[in-house]
Amino acid sequence: VTRVADQPSAFDVLVAQAAERLERSAFDFLDGGATDEITLDANRRAFERWCLLPRTCVDVSTVDVSVELRHARLDVPYFVAPSGAHRLFHPDAEFASAAAAKSSGAVYVTSTAASVSMEELAAVAPDERWYQLYCFRDRGVVADLVRRAEHSGYRALVVTVDAPVLGRRLRDVRNNFSVGPEIRWANLEPYGAADLGGPTDGSVVARYFADQIDPSITWDDIEQLVASTHLPVYVKGVLHPGDARRAVSAGVQGVYVSNHGGRQLDRVPATLDALGDIVEAVGDELDVLVDGGVRCAADVVIALARGADAVGLGRLVIYALAAGGQASMTAVLDELRDDLIHTLRLLGVPRLRSLDRSSLVPARPTES
Amino acid sequence: VTRVADQPSAFDVLVAQAAERLERSAFDFLDGGATDEITLDANRRAFERWCLLPRTCVDVSTVDVSVELRHARLDVPYFVAPSGAHRLFHPDAEFASAAAAKSSGAVYVTSTAASVSMEELAAVAPDERWYQLYCFRDRGVVADLVRRAEHSGYRALVVTVDAPVLGRRLRDVRNNFSVGPEIRWANLEPYGAADLGGPTDGSVVARYFADQIDPSITWDDIEQLVASTHLPVYVKGVLHPGDARRAVSAGVQGVYVSNHGGRQLDRVPATLDALGDIVEAVGDELDVLVDGGVRCAADVVIALARGADAVGLGRLVIYALAAGGQASMTAVLDELRDDLIHTLRLLGVPRLRSLDRSSLVPARPTES
Amino acid sequence: VTRVADQPSAFDVLVAQAAERLERSAFDFLDGGATDEITLDANRRAFERWCLLPRTCVDVSTVDVSVELRHARLDVPYFVAPSGAHRLFHPDAEFASAAAAKSSGAVYVTSTAASVSMEELAAVAPDERWYQLYCFRDRGVVADLVRRAEHSGYRALVVTVDAPVLGRRLRDVRNNFSVGPEIRWANLEPYGAADLGGPTDGSVVARYFADQIDPSITWDDIEQLVASTHLPVYVKGVLHPGDARRAVSAGVQGVYVSNHGGRQLDRVPATLDALGDIVEAVGDELDVLVDGGVRCAADVVIALARGADAVGLGRLVIYALAAGGQASMTAVLDELRDDLIHTLRLLGVPRLRSLDRSSLVPARPTES
Amino acid sequence: VTRVADQPSAFDVLVAQAAERLERSAFDFLDGGATDEITLDANRRAFERWCLLPRTCVDVSTVDVSVELRHARLDVPYFVAPSGAHRLFHPDAEFASAAAAKSSGAVYVTSTAASVSMEELAAVAPDERWYQLYCFRDRGVVADLVRRAEHSGYRALVVTVDAPVLGRRLRDVRNNFSVGPEIRWANLEPYGAADLGGPTDGSVVARYFADQIDPSITWDDIEQLVASTHLPVYVKGVLHPGDARRAVSAGVQGVYVSNHGGRQLDRVPATLDALGDIVEAVGDELDVLVDGGVRCAADVVIALARGADAVGLGRLVIYALAAGGQASMTAVLDELRDDLIHTLRLLGVPRLRSLDRSSLVPARPTES
Repeated sequence: VTRVADQPSAFDVLVAQAAERLERSAFDFLDGGATDEITLDANRRAFERWCLLPRTCVDVSTVDVSVELRHARLDVPYFVAPSGAHRLFHPDAEFASAAAAKSSGAVYVTSTAASVSMEELAAVAPDERWYQLYCFRDRGVVADLVRRAEHSGYRALVVTVDAPVLGRRLRDVRNNFSVGPEIRWANLEPYGAADLGGPTDGSVVARYFADQIDPSITWDDIEQLVASTHLPVYVKGVLHPGDARRAVSAGVQGVYVSNHGGRQLDRVPATLDALGDIVEAVGDELDVLVDGGVRCAADVVIALARGADAVGLGRLVIYALAAGGQASMTAVLDELRDDLIHTLRLLGVPRLRSLDRSSLVPARPTES
Repeated sequence: VTRVADQPSAFDVLVAQAAERLERSAFDFLDGGATDEITLDANRRAFERWCLLPRTCVDVSTVDVSVELRHARLDVPYFVAPSGAHRLFHPDAEFASAAAAKSSGAVYVTSTAASVSMEELAAVAPDERWYQLYCFRDRGVVADLVRRAEHSGYRALVVTVDAPVLGRRLRDVRNNFSVGPEIRWANLEPYGAADLGGPTDGSVVARYFADQIDPSITWDDIEQLVASTHLPVYVKGVLHPGDARRAVSAGVQGVYVSNHGGRQLDRVPATLDALGDIVEAVGDELDVLVDGGVRCAADVVIALARGADAVGLGRLVIYALAAGGQASMTAVLDELRDDLIHTLRLLGVPRLRSLDRSSLVPARPTES
Repeated sequence: VTRVADQPSAFDVLVAQAAERLERSAFDFLDGGATDEITLDANRRAFERWCLLPRTCVDVSTVDVSVELRHARLDVPYFVAPSGAHRLFHPDAEFASAAAAKSSGAVYVTSTAASVSMEELAAVAPDERWYQLYCFRDRGVVADLVRRAEHSGYRALVVTVDAPVLGRRLRDVRNNFSVGPEIRWANLEPYGAADLGGPTDGSVVARYFADQIDPSITWDDIEQLVASTHLPVYVKGVLHPGDARRAVSAGVQGVYVSNHGGRQLDRVPATLDALGDIVEAVGDELDVLVDGGVRCAADVVIALARGADAVGLGRLVIYALAAGGQASMTAVLDELRDDLIHTLRLLGVPRLRSLDRSSLVPARPTES
Repeated sequence: VTRVADQPSAFDVLVAQAAERLERSAFDFLDGGATDEITLDANRRAFERWCLLPRTCVDVSTVDVSVELRHARLDVPYFVAPSGAHRLFHPDAEFASAAAAKSSGAVYVTSTAASVSMEELAAVAPDERWYQLYCFRDRGVVADLVRRAEHSGYRALVVTVDAPVLGRRLRDVRNNFSVGPEIRWANLEPYGAADLGGPTDGSVVARYFADQIDPSITWDDIEQLVASTHLPVYVKGVLHPGDARRAVSAGVQGVYVSNHGGRQLDRVPATLDALGDIVEAVGDELDVLVDGGVRCAADVVIALARGADAVGLGRLVIYALAAGGQASMTAVLDELRDDLIHTLRLLGVPRLRSLDRSSLVPARPTES
């Protein structure tokens, strides 16, 4: 007897397609995490520890899946999380991923390490587009990136703080991961730092990172960033409730609970596990975003019920990009939206903004 | 050394026989659950987290396995749970399953989606027979079904509330599940909605369901149903204690804790896990029924000890129907009764109605 | 790299030897448990949930492993638990097992279902020998067995109360378990009930049991038994603390926590898990014995540290009997004693009677 | 798709190299533990139950990994734990391991059972070198060893108290573990007890141990040892908080939480699990050292965050010694230091001495 659990899921098929179409080193760069990939795995398993607890006899003939952030209403509660160098995964690069986000109503966050510049991307990206920022040693670069994001219509800044140094991504080290001259960090071309090509010993990303990124930034730098722009700022990579409290006084609009997809420090908590304490600490004062391990609508619902205001999609959509470009990624995003509506119907929650912890129970209650 | 755990259990043999005799798509329709079948699996595993705690030196020379509901005394504490289209599983269809229930003393619940009409079935079904109702968009259909159930001697109504839309049963979708013209929803023939045949894209049941079933019903509809009939009403598909409380004020006779055999929303709690809070919330005021994952007498005992008043049998008896028609199903039900008496003797509980939580302990206590 | 865990342990070797030398149906009768053998397995796993917590800098040059019961001092803290029909396992039958117990200093408990009569056995058994009693429908048989035990020098009675009917031992049912004419229940010959031979449908033991054993005994019967003899009485098969309390008022000397080696009601707690609450309930007033799953000295230490006064050995020594008769069983018992002394040295507990719960911690503490 | 978890880690490769280069019996002596090797395994798994909880926006441009003991500042927070007879693993013996420790800045602890005498070793060992002591039956030997350690520049004594008798190392027994004449216990040559060669029945180490080591030592002996030397004394092998309290009054400088690498009493707690209660009991008054299962920088960080003052490295560095002598061991130690600095950067803890429990969370929180 073959059970459904014995068959590859739609997600498994997507990963297999991506694996087939990509060079091994590019696939590993996408698929891999830091060190023993324990956190990478934990991000997924954390969702398995929660059950959905449905209400019945609720009119679910129409379902509203929009959510509200402090600066914007989102049509869907998820966004394309920032990730670098989409040209590694598909020749259409960020043009494809941004267009897919736009057609499906999702926010798009472009990375400092994008292979398409933020100005080029503005034309195809959704109106609600955000810019992800690394803190370069050269603060002039940072200031210029912020100014350019403002000018090209980005509506929020996402500053990454969990990467003072790069994580130990053993697959990249083993693969001597490097990229051809066609892969450039387009946002950085004005500063002469865009070229990743040429031979390398170990990971080219790790080498570049050590050269350019500042490991000495503090909350004072965050405060100065907030003061330097009219854009709302999200601090990405927060796992500790104490940091979330500090973020409040730094004046940011939100914290973004992330472990960088398990790619920075291994053996940190799953983001879903870290989320609860952070919502408890700052949920009334800040937006709380989260990413890590989200694969389906039930995961989105669990993260939101635990208190997140919106949920980032990383590998899920990039596997799709690799598997079939804009079309595949659009299909995944549209399917996710259908699945979310269907899930909310069966959950008895027609208005996503009303969702709260009463729709969850631990998966294995201890009873007596 | 071969241990008993290495050998197929009687239940495993039954499933294998069903798998052998049925078309793959029919077997999958019976055997499968929603999405990743996590809840389907959880229903079973929940029973493994409880141990039976026997009393000794009790006179168990005679054992009484009857239980009391608000409207009836049941000879055995279980009933055949409603499931559709038994002709898919055996040519004798509901005639076989209802007769097996009658001969073994169990309540029989026929489905709105039965392949034999409730009137035809009345002749062979037990006196204690109940009718399961879906809420159709056309409320005239609902009213007529209720009137017919009353007239043909059904003694309770079981209204299903966990299916405003159909669950994502991926096996059915993959199989393009459809049925031949010999499978009809006989109860619905008067309303021109009985024919399921013909080509389909995806599951024929899902398509039919979306057309006919009303996703907007509320507790007001339940109250109107209660007011429209002299029959006691059970609300089937309740998992949330808040819904159980609401059911009290709606005037129903009981709540039926079910997740539709893991066929509706995946990743909801196992019914046994949900049962405790619901008994706590309404056990003194309503009958509490439960189904999901019951495979043997010990499971029945655990569910009753957790506070259920009676226990539904779903796949267990339908696999038997598929394996060998009325004879196999009767054998399974008779064996269950023998096993129940034997279990209660060794448990030191000669009167099933006296069973309570003191006969259970968690399977892995945490001690200090 | 081969780790020790990949190699068969001494215990595994013993079981394999027993399996090789016995008829399959005799091995299964010994090795098997009831129904799904969940309790059989749980008895073992319960020990894995405890760690030994040693003390250091204690003078362990001499170690005393004796313990005190209310009526006797035992040289070692374990006894050969009652089990039936040793002739099934070795031609020397109970003569071999009793002699092994005597040479190693352990108490020997002979079964009502022994293949050697208690009178014959008295000559080779240890001075500290006990008689296990079933409650027959014919109370004259019971009274006579008690009188005979008194006259042939047995020093305690162990009355089994967890078997009003026999457990469902599926291996025996599948094997149509029966025995040849050489296997007799020698203690029962005076009552014309000793012959187990001849064809059978299902297990011969189950059939015999249903004929002879009384399922209606109550605590009143226990009180009458206590009043009828000067021997101390142990009630064997208690798992519920409420029964242990009742045993106090029945006037017994002790309760014997047992689930009949997982051979009666399946899915009851592991005896080690049940032990704690029973010691809590009656440990100051009664002796508490326990059996189930003990395989090595560390298991003995854990059971005693949880509050047992002595520990029964069942399958462990019977596998040895089957593997090599008296010599093998003596070797196992001597090795156990050496291992116990060694364990207590490393545990820093030179006097076993001083052992208490401070020498244990849960195997996986939850810390915060 | 091949995941990193499917590939052998650097540690696995090291063990495989050691296995390849060593005689089987020598490898088993190194690799094995007592009895069922449950504690050996538990030492590793205990680390998996903790997550690192990083802080962000901390200046980590420089990282200080030194720690302070009561008598010394250590450049790195780990030390080479005492282990015997390094000549079994590499011809350069302790000369190689001590030189590797020195070049990497780690404390070196030489064993009483070393194959090189403490005087010979002094020339190549680090300035911060300690001497491990067993309590011989002949206290004159003990006194002389202490005097020699003082004279040859050892800065602390580590007295082992978890070995009044040797653990049951089944691999050694099975291998009839013995050594050739080239393996001598060089520290013991003055006392005529250095020769381990010649035929043996079972483990030669076990036989030697039973002859020479005193199983009657008590805390009085520890007090006398403390009084007999100006060197600080660590008591190695403490797992019980009560013993840690007693160690305070005995006047030692510290307790060393160890289960002898799982080689003494099996089924005792993982050292990391025992550490917490001991730090709670004596952490303000004594140094607390710990060893067992440390394989990488994250493990070191977890042990220190749980309250240890320094961490011992056992098998990790000895596998390296076996795999490639001083060069391999130096490489492992240098890599560990780099990894530690990297881990602290990503953890947001630039000064190791500031690390505390706020950097840890349980790996699977139970939330509600």
